[in-house]
Amino acid sequence: MEKQKSFIAVHAGAGYHSTNKETEYRSVCKDACKQAMEILHKEGNAVEAVTKAVSVLEDSPLTNAGLGSSLTLEGCVECDASVMDGRTLTSGAVGCVMDVQNPVQVAERLVQTQVQGGLSHGRIPPSILVAHGARQWADQQDITLTADAGHVTESSRRTYLKYKRKLANQTSTSGNKETAEDTTHKRMKTGKDELECGECSGVQDTVGCVCVDGEGNMAAACSSGGIWMKHTGRMGPAAHYGVGSWAHNGCCNKTPGVAVVSSGGGEHLIKTFLAKTCADRVQKEPNASLAVSSAFKDNFLESEFLSHVEDKHGGVLVLKHLMEDDGYREAEVLWAHTTDSMCVGYMLETHSKPTTFISRLPASSLPGKSFAMEGKNFKL
Amino acid sequence: MEKQKSFIAVHAGAGYHSTNKETEYRSVCKDACKQAMEILHKEGNAVEAVTKAVSVLEDSPLTNAGLGSSLTLEGCVECDASVMDGRTLTSGAVGCVMDVQNPVQVAERLVQTQVQGGLSHGRIPPSILVAHGARQWADQQDITLTADAGHVTESSRRTYLKYKRKLANQTSTSGNKETAEDTTHKRMKTGKDELECGECSGVQDTVGCVCVDGEGNMAAACSSGGIWMKHTGRMGPAAHYGVGSWAHNGCCNKTPGVAVVSSGGGEHLIKTFLAKTCADRVQKEPNASLAVSSAFKDNFLESEFLSHVEDKHGGVLVLKHLMEDDGYREAEVLWAHTTDSMCVGYMLETHSKPTTFISRLPASSLPGKSFAMEGKNFKL
Repeated sequence: MEKQKSFIAVHAGAGYHSTNKETEYRSVCKDACKQAMEILHKEGNAVEAVTKAVSVLEDSPLTNAGLGSSLTLEGCVECDASVMDGRTLTSGAVGCVMDVQNPVQVAERLVQTQVQGGLSHGRIPPSILVAHGARQWADQQDITLTADAGHVTESSRRTYLKYKRKLANQTSTSGNKETAEDTTHKRMKTGKDELECGECSGVQDTVGCVCVDGEGNMAAACSSGGIWMKHTGRMGPAAHYGVGSWAHNGCCNKTPGVAVVSSGGGEHLIKTFLAKTCADRVQKEPNASLAVSSAFKDNFLESEFLSHVEDKHGGVLVLKHLMEDDGYREAEVLWAHTTDSMCVGYMLETHSKPTTFISRLPASSLPGKSFAMEGKNFKL
Repeated sequence: MEKQKSFIAVHAGAGYHSTNKETEYRSVCKDACKQAMEILHKEGNAVEAVTKAVSVLEDSPLTNAGLGSSLTLEGCVECDASVMDGRTLTSGAVGCVMDVQNPVQVAERLVQTQVQGGLSHGRIPPSILVAHGARQWADQQDITLTADAGHVTESSRRTYLKYKRKLANQTSTSGNKETAEDTTHKRMKTGKDELECGECSGVQDTVGCVCVDGEGNMAAACSSGGIWMKHTGRMGPAAHYGVGSWAHNGCCNKTPGVAVVSSGGGEHLIKTFLAKTCADRVQKEPNASLAVSSAFKDNFLESEFLSHVEDKHGGVLVLKHLMEDDGYREAEVLWAHTTDSMCVGYMLETHSKPTTFISRLPASSLPGKSFAMEGKNFKL
């Protein structure tokens, strides 16, 4: 295939982004786009580029991934991440991994191992590793580990202690059946605890990246620290196959290529396979906006799998790669979310700098009940 | 809904079952059916019945689930299991859990916790817990733990030591790039190592159960110890949402109810979401045999996600529940596998005893390249 322009898009989580930190959130997305684009300039492929971008997002203490992740009930960071290669349709994931500097890099290595193994020997290497075993494998692969509790920041430690005190107070005073843990989870999920927590800059979820490289290959990657005060061993959407990330190169001029990453309320995304569901729709329905909005309406907000859920928190970043018979090629990027906000950045290879912004639900819309969607097209 | 007859079907793994142990395999399936049917007789529901059946399969040292599971490279048992409730469309799963007597019971408890929480408080309890955290949660829930290494049998210890010696020999003599671990995995997956391993009675995978109860509610459950000498933390298909088990009650007379469990080559099942894929087809295509055979052909043997895989090892046990407008109700059970064999048992509530058998690929068929499928209908 003739070399074409590459395109990358990232997001720093669908959730709640305070206006006073807007510049910082956008700056992280900008960095992620730029560093990934450098990889692409040096003939790096889509898988390498999304891994780089998500590594940058993980390294920022602002995002809920890698450094600065939410802490578990026991005060630890347990990370989930996945990478999908649209060329070989291979996915790699880690769940609840501790002490790995960049969890997304373990997921990428699992993709590589499968692609190498699968091609030559008919071997079946693991597609997902969790917890202690994932950390051990990463170490064997010479992937950088952190010092003990190296992902815990001063800010996350303070937030943890605050929540911990609340839990203790609730446990000692509460006589009803709902546990303090339940209440805290509920508040954090809706972001309503924000008002009571000055140090906590907001509630964000899984970060992610989608890309089409110069060869027309697509990839998606995501990473998350999961929900605040989660139970140890709770594996979130970022590690679930078909849920956190999905990529499919498509087929020549018949099916468009697509890459999707999702973010938001973990179990809502899992139950609806949100990334794969959106991707499948985009590959079937010629109008990408219609495809994504239908997926959000039919398969998320009105999904029978979430019929007992009052508020559905989710966001997606979608990249469609269109190839016409006459050689015309186009990238279409879309972002949609039912959460209060979503911080997005994107960059075409010929752009001098990335475009970044925070997409917000209109004031008249209720988070969890309606969605905002926008998009943009670029000739490649 | 008027009370109707219930139906249960189990399988003890798709893989290789030696003829000299056939009676024992069938006996385990018989026990599982009978004990689950006792639950149903006492007004237990489908979720309770499948959990009971799979618990019986886990307790048998013959199956690769719970007691007698395959050991990891480090000589430990790490179990995967999941349960899906077709009424509430809720799934619970555990991955790589150690020292829990019946992993499937943790998965069931996660279903219950979600159903209770989801209905009343808008809470989002975990749908999956892995490794140490899963064990800890099980303990908090008063689910029975085993003694240290309680799932390791004399036979599995002997097999482990044999493989360990082979690995050591290969490592010391091998100069090529394929590691000893890779070779051992490959041999075990294809079952070819069988000939060299007298003590090892065969290669079986995930066990499972599907059920429709007297209320017309459906459920599916599965459990597995995973592949021999797997890397610590390798999570298999039994814990993956949409892969190991799937259940959907259907909708009145419009969509039939369906419950599916899968078994076989872990990563093959994962990549193709085998249980959900079969279930979706059965709900769309009126002819269940046609639905399952199409799923096996189009979405498994010829799947683009397995295009680099030479042999595709998989099996499914499918239960369809049909409700006609005139009140006629029918259960249709089907089993299909590309593996050498699959041990199946089933029982209608009015049967005096379960029917059990080992389904084998015809001598002319090659495992991993073609499939055998059969089924049976029962008026409820």
